[in-house]
Amino acid sequence: MFWSKAFIPTLKEAPQEAESLSHKLMLRAGLIRMLISGVYIYLPLGLKVLNNVERIIREEMDASGAQELLLPALQPLELWQKTERDSLMGEVMIRFVDRKGRKLCLGPTHEEVITFLAKTHINSYKQLPLVLYQIQTKFRDEIRPRFGLVRSCEFIMKDAYSFDKDEKGLDKNYQKMYNAYKRIFKRCGLNFYVVSADPGVMGGDVSHEFMVPAESGEDKVLYCKNCKYVEAFRQESIQLSCPKCAHNLDKINTLEVGHIFKLRTKYSLSLGAQFLDKDGIQKPLIMGCYGIGVSRIIPAIIEQNHDAEGIIWPKEISPYKVIIIPLNIYERKVMEIAKYIYESLINLGIEVILDDRDEQAGVKFKDADLIGIYLKVVIGKEFLSKGNLELSLRKDKKIIKVKKEAILNRIKKLLYE
Amino acid sequence: MFWSKAFIPTLKEAPQEAESLSHKLMLRAGLIRMLISGVYIYLPLGLKVLNNVERIIREEMDASGAQELLLPALQPLELWQKTERDSLMGEVMIRFVDRKGRKLCLGPTHEEVITFLAKTHINSYKQLPLVLYQIQTKFRDEIRPRFGLVRSCEFIMKDAYSFDKDEKGLDKNYQKMYNAYKRIFKRCGLNFYVVSADPGVMGGDVSHEFMVPAESGEDKVLYCKNCKYVEAFRQESIQLSCPKCAHNLDKINTLEVGHIFKLRTKYSLSLGAQFLDKDGIQKPLIMGCYGIGVSRIIPAIIEQNHDAEGIIWPKEISPYKVIIIPLNIYERKVMEIAKYIYESLINLGIEVILDDRDEQAGVKFKDADLIGIYLKVVIGKEFLSKGNLELSLRKDKKIIKVKKEAILNRIKKLLYE
Repeated sequence: MFWSKAFIPTLKEAPQEAESLSHKLMLRAGLIRMLISGVYIYLPLGLKVLNNVERIIREEMDASGAQELLLPALQPLELWQKTERDSLMGEVMIRFVDRKGRKLCLGPTHEEVITFLAKTHINSYKQLPLVLYQIQTKFRDEIRPRFGLVRSCEFIMKDAYSFDKDEKGLDKNYQKMYNAYKRIFKRCGLNFYVVSADPGVMGGDVSHEFMVPAESGEDKVLYCKNCKYVEAFRQESIQLSCPKCAHNLDKINTLEVGHIFKLRTKYSLSLGAQFLDKDGIQKPLIMGCYGIGVSRIIPAIIEQNHDAEGIIWPKEISPYKVIIIPLNIYERKVMEIAKYIYESLINLGIEVILDDRDEQAGVKFKDADLIGIYLKVVIGKEFLSKGNLELSLRKDKKIIKVKKEAILNRIKKLLYE
Repeated sequence: MFWSKAFIPTLKEAPQEAESLSHKLMLRAGLIRMLISGVYIYLPLGLKVLNNVERIIREEMDASGAQELLLPALQPLELWQKTERDSLMGEVMIRFVDRKGRKLCLGPTHEEVITFLAKTHINSYKQLPLVLYQIQTKFRDEIRPRFGLVRSCEFIMKDAYSFDKDEKGLDKNYQKMYNAYKRIFKRCGLNFYVVSADPGVMGGDVSHEFMVPAESGEDKVLYCKNCKYVEAFRQESIQLSCPKCAHNLDKINTLEVGHIFKLRTKYSLSLGAQFLDKDGIQKPLIMGCYGIGVSRIIPAIIEQNHDAEGIIWPKEISPYKVIIIPLNIYERKVMEIAKYIYESLINLGIEVILDDRDEQAGVKFKDADLIGIYLKVVIGKEFLSKGNLELSLRKDKKIIKVKKEAILNRIKKLLYE
């Protein structure tokens, strides 16, 4: 992509609506725009970041044996009445009656629909275990949307559902998902805590939350620096020393990015999803569910990866891996080498943006730092005088001087090593 | 994927709800399931097909210089009031009031939202031309949903929008999209007609529809076998001989899969989206919009690519490119070669499914034909006696006997030539 043709509307100042650091940076870097409070447009750069997050999730879910499908946003309210969650969800669930008089809702989650599907198609223990997942848009009538993509009315979730014939199978799938989640958040460049949690409206008895330390996070965890013990902070948490080593506990603001649940038979019983076991006996399916706040991961990454100049994308998340900045676009030799590197990287399958705008060096450097591209190649004065190109990683900004002949190998090494 | 682990619930008989050929085959092949009338679940195989259609669309849109973004489904009704389309859309647009009293709708299309974005970020002729597109879920309160994905309440569209400084620019972008559409539908394996059409509620004056001949299609075109003249059938079409050569015209049932419009200034004027031209004069943006019914392309492909046994996927659309069928899964040598081919294809990046189910040959062949995988490799009796593997394309079923050593090259040739 040539920057002069790209739709990347960066801003010098964040709009007033922005409250948190990540929200400000997402607006300034041209990742998102607000349509109305709680409802956002993903601009091209933001969509690339979202796609990178989704790719990591898909790779790890597929590797764990889960199969992707796609469930509809429109759901019949009747299913929610059967599980008694219609009233539990309260006003946060968007409902309406269609022209034919059908009572519908926009799914804030999909336990009911997936259990309906399982009831139709899982009949025998031979079809188990089965894990299905989707990456899909969810809706909530959020009374107080905040922090951009952190708490919004329309957002993207990954939700997975496991079906097993017994508790042992559920334990195994739960552990598989737990491990997949750790790999996903690590690849996203996140530090995180895992804490036991209250299953809440999901039901079931065991659940774990994946919490990312972030200044604007509204959930809190208690953490022991001494022995690494961690637990969710609750109103009842009056005892504030570590139960393991009696050291002081730190209260840390965090963002919830994942939550996994052992649902057991809550949904299969209320919706009648049964299977025949080895002995020919009808039993309810044993279920688990596993959620990731896909769009919320983006602000979580930014909260943990930024400096005063802007975003510092982790390698796998960076919307372009390389940015090429020719300082004098009117110098033929400068643009020749810029385009040579650009085309070579495209041929190698490496996403690259060439800043061909007629702008001052300062503007180009500021924008590159703001949008946080992983690796920068500058073609400046030293190229004409000494043949040197300047490579630097966004995260440390140390400049590596490289000759033209060595540039591609050096870039490959920095991206793949 | 091993079929024994895959969630591919094929059916011997189509459920009663299915009316058209493509709808029946989509249900029988385990591509989709109905949740409620007009609302469908994409099962894993159906999602793979959808992803392949989307990939083709993205490649051709990107190649034409368009940039992808993602707009929200939730929209403020206020924008629709400004363009006077609120009343025009009638009851087909889903509306509701949220907890804060905001009047919202679920976008059946996005001209208003994209013009709002353009108004915010396009200020100068220097930023033009610009083409933005998205692939996104749309909603319609459809009074009479029919034929599965053909006319449903929740569906996936590709919508693109062009912004230009003058008519000449619009003509150029319109032609680019026209050409991209022809490439997209061709790669999807579709025969289609392009006809001038009535812009309807979109506004503007020039528009073209891309129509796929299909038995269950509800739109009709008039076609001249003699000189290839084609036009949309309208109630007024009483003169039924070709205006070019006077030959008889055939009335053909078709499905609309794409529609492109020269909107000109309809939206930019009513929403105040202006830019400064070269002479410093404020002018309204000149717009075009370009839609593809992404989910509808799937039944359109099936209507044109099937036989009595099932679906015949075109190469680029096939959810797996290759299906490997070992007839005797208890014969060690048979499973060894099956797994060798399976792993080799995965290493080559070729999507493959191995039918390792303990089923009769007849069941396996029937399922493979039903789900329509492009290329079949059978490991039968002749493998043990003579070392022959049997390759065949779904479209012609001619059996090619190949030795083990030659199998991978032969598959690559059939897939890539």
